[in-house]
Amino acid sequence: MTNELENKIIKYVEEQLSCSAHDLEHVFRVYNLALKISENDNVDLDVLRAAVLLHDIARIKEDADNTGNTNHADLGAVMAGKFLGTTEFPIDKIRSVEKCIRVHRFRTNMKPESIEEKILFDADKLDSVGAIGIARTFGWVGKHGCRIFYRPDDLEAYIMANMSGKWNGKIQDKHLHSAQIEFDIKLKHMSDLLYTEKAKKIAEERIAYFQSFMERLEEEIQGNF
Amino acid sequence: MTNELENKIIKYVEEQLSCSAHDLEHVFRVYNLALKISENDNVDLDVLRAAVLLHDIARIKEDADNTGNTNHADLGAVMAGKFLGTTEFPIDKIRSVEKCIRVHRFRTNMKPESIEEKILFDADKLDSVGAIGIARTFGWVGKHGCRIFYRPDDLEAYIMANMSGKWNGKIQDKHLHSAQIEFDIKLKHMSDLLYTEKAKKIAEERIAYFQSFMERLEEEIQGNF
Ligand SMILES: [Fe+2]
Ligand SMILES: [Fe+2]
Ligand SMILES: [Fe+2]
Ligand SMILES: [Fe+2]
Repeated sequence: MTNELENKIIKYVEEQLSCSAHDLEHVFRVYNLALKISENDNVDLDVLRAAVLLHDIARIKEDADNTGNTNHADLGAVMAGKFLGTTEFPIDKIRSVEKCIRVHRFRTNMKPESIEEKILFDADKLDSVGAIGIARTFGWVGKHGCRIFYRPDDLEAYIMANMSGKWNGKIQDKHLHSAQIEFDIKLKHMSDLLYTEKAKKIAEERIAYFQSFMERLEEEIQGNF
Repeated sequence: MTNELENKIIKYVEEQLSCSAHDLEHVFRVYNLALKISENDNVDLDVLRAAVLLHDIARIKEDADNTGNTNHADLGAVMAGKFLGTTEFPIDKIRSVEKCIRVHRFRTNMKPESIEEKILFDADKLDSVGAIGIARTFGWVGKHGCRIFYRPDDLEAYIMANMSGKWNGKIQDKHLHSAQIEFDIKLKHMSDLLYTEKAKKIAEERIAYFQSFMERLEEEIQGNF
């Protein structure tokens, strides 16, 4: 893929995410992570780079749809395919890009299969742990009025009661929710769901950082440090 | 001060801050910090404990006043004095509590003088650095749609243009603002404005943690870790 074509793709992504600088910055972080994970592997970088850049283009449309019927992975795949068809992007690779985008999401029945699909999936999830995961979690907590620090006595019972019984379920009452709960869920489930060995290693280190942060936060809240 | 009286004060504080669990948790963190700072010092704990618990009771009234004329330190001092007058709190100490609350704020011409005033001021500021400072900063960033990571080329020029020239000034365009800017300002100015030696030591350690977090965040954003 030429720089010129890549810039054309980026311009389109910026238009789609123009009301959400947050999502755009996420896209570039995932891009850097995906390139890092793909180093020394036999990866189609045309497919990977296009898929990463375009993976969240339908995010704003999903958020704007109050019926809950829009899935940004499915819609994004369609939009990406249509857009790439108007460019000089190799036509025989468009299907692969679409598939990457379609399966990048947690809540889906289709699972990543190709190496490019797995790398996009993993890089996207890695952006929710580590220091950036801390920043994003508290940003989300602040936006939705959740609590900074609250740990239910029984996490599984909490998930049953407030998240439809699924650890990646929709949160029913955000005022009952907390950063602590998000962290506990990630600590427990994150490393199981990644596909590539390189991402698993990065996740392990990032989750350890995450955990040390939460331990320190707890100490500080008790008046230590 | 008896436990019974302290619980009565806490109940009143909870009523005043009932729409803001966030502020209530802040009050208890500041309470723990203030007790820690006051250890082994000659401090009137009646005055300090009452002042800490009551220091932000007018916060919601300030936020609700769109004219910008309500100062929660001044109003809180008046409310606290009136409330304590209805309890068995020693009447000769009410003035001291009021004064603590009146001067706990950055943007004021009056400065803390007594040891209790200094401790409340310092403990309140310490809650904005360290892991809890990270959590609160990103919560604020998420709530107001600021950016996670954006550092202007020239911080002083940015402060002139977007914060009325004052590092603790009102932010004019929140979409231009970022967690990075908040951190940079605190790194530069925080330690100068504390009064007690113990708080300065805690601040130094918390700011170092803060700084290591931001450095790590920057690395992660570039795709490292
Ligand atoms: Fe997504
Ligand atoms: Fe994403
Ligand atoms: Fe305050
Ligand atoms: Fe405060």
